[in-house]
Amino acid sequence: MQPRHTINYCRVCGHAVEHRVPDDGDSRIRAVCPACHSIQYLNPLNVVGTIPVWEGKVLLCKRNIEPRMGKWTLPAGFMELDETTTQGAARETDEEAGVQIDMGALFSIISLPRVGQVHLFYRADMRSPDMHPGPETQEARLFAEADIPWSELAFRTTQITLERFFSDRQHGHYGLHDLSIE
Amino acid sequence: MQPRHTINYCRVCGHAVEHRVPDDGDSRIRAVCPACHSIQYLNPLNVVGTIPVWEGKVLLCKRNIEPRMGKWTLPAGFMELDETTTQGAARETDEEAGVQIDMGALFSIISLPRVGQVHLFYRADMRSPDMHPGPETQEARLFAEADIPWSELAFRTTQITLERFFSDRQHGHYGLHDLSIE
Ligand SMILES: [Zn+2]
Ligand SMILES: [Zn+2]
Repeated sequence: MQPRHTINYCRVCGHAVEHRVPDDGDSRIRAVCPACHSIQYLNPLNVVGTIPVWEGKVLLCKRNIEPRMGKWTLPAGFMELDETTTQGAARETDEEAGVQIDMGALFSIISLPRVGQVHLFYRADMRSPDMHPGPETQEARLFAEADIPWSELAFRTTQITLERFFSDRQHGHYGLHDLSIE
Repeated sequence: MQPRHTINYCRVCGHAVEHRVPDDGDSRIRAVCPACHSIQYLNPLNVVGTIPVWEGKVLLCKRNIEPRMGKWTLPAGFMELDETTTQGAARETDEEAGVQIDMGALFSIISLPRVGQVHLFYRADMRSPDMHPGPETQEARLFAEADIPWSELAFRTTQITLERFFSDRQHGHYGLHDLSIE
């Protein structure tokens, strides 16, 4: 989890910041430091993950952390510095499910402007059914489409991505799903 | 521009932070506040933009700001909170070029792990050849493929996106280009 804190103090020099439109042509209110003149921004965060598939079944993880502890999700988490979107998606899949995958194409990119996030899910083929869930996961399990626990999913982006995935699979063609959730 | 500052002080309480692995199961070094116990993260930023096209020509903007002042770029900029990727791409296109567009499909998503950014470019059809460049742009101009100023482009993500765009157009099919630049 990466909660967003209001910016009260300058992270460079520790002085209390002002919240105002900077003098550099910007049009938005930012955290501006009157002491060292640095400007500190808040921007959307990327959440990167995969849709891991083994013999037609999709891997879901039962969350062992808040929020939504005990609910099911596709493996995903915040993209870190020093990695690409696919490297982040592979890392989260390894950390949360402990499965080895061959990374496929980007399948969904879902903007969540209310929470300041963009969720990106890649298709992925599991190399074996072996799973070694990490501490953030109570249980990892393969689900056939008919067995997906729709009412027990943790996040709407997981639900939408799975709905689109099964629909595309039925139609024999996987697209790119670029959506937003207000 | 949104330079990344090292985190020296806690943005919540102003106390000097420690740089260490937090006690919450994380495995990376973060800025941890010993006073209020908040953890402050640095994550990749999204840059969103468009490939605006009018009668087969592509619109480029000559930058009026550093870095790369005087070089040509596709209209793009940092995604803001409270917007989707396409809303951000449309906003930047309006701010930098002052052109009205019909937004098309995501065309390129380019990770830049060394600078902590992801650049996303959407195809876009201009509704008219009218342009009203903003203060960040010296000049906006429509270029035929043969006239693209390849040696005067501001950013590698612009270059790669334009190369892929013209190649796809020649082949009669626009794909999604998911790349990284080390
Ligand atoms: Zn300061
Ligand atoms: Zn603090």
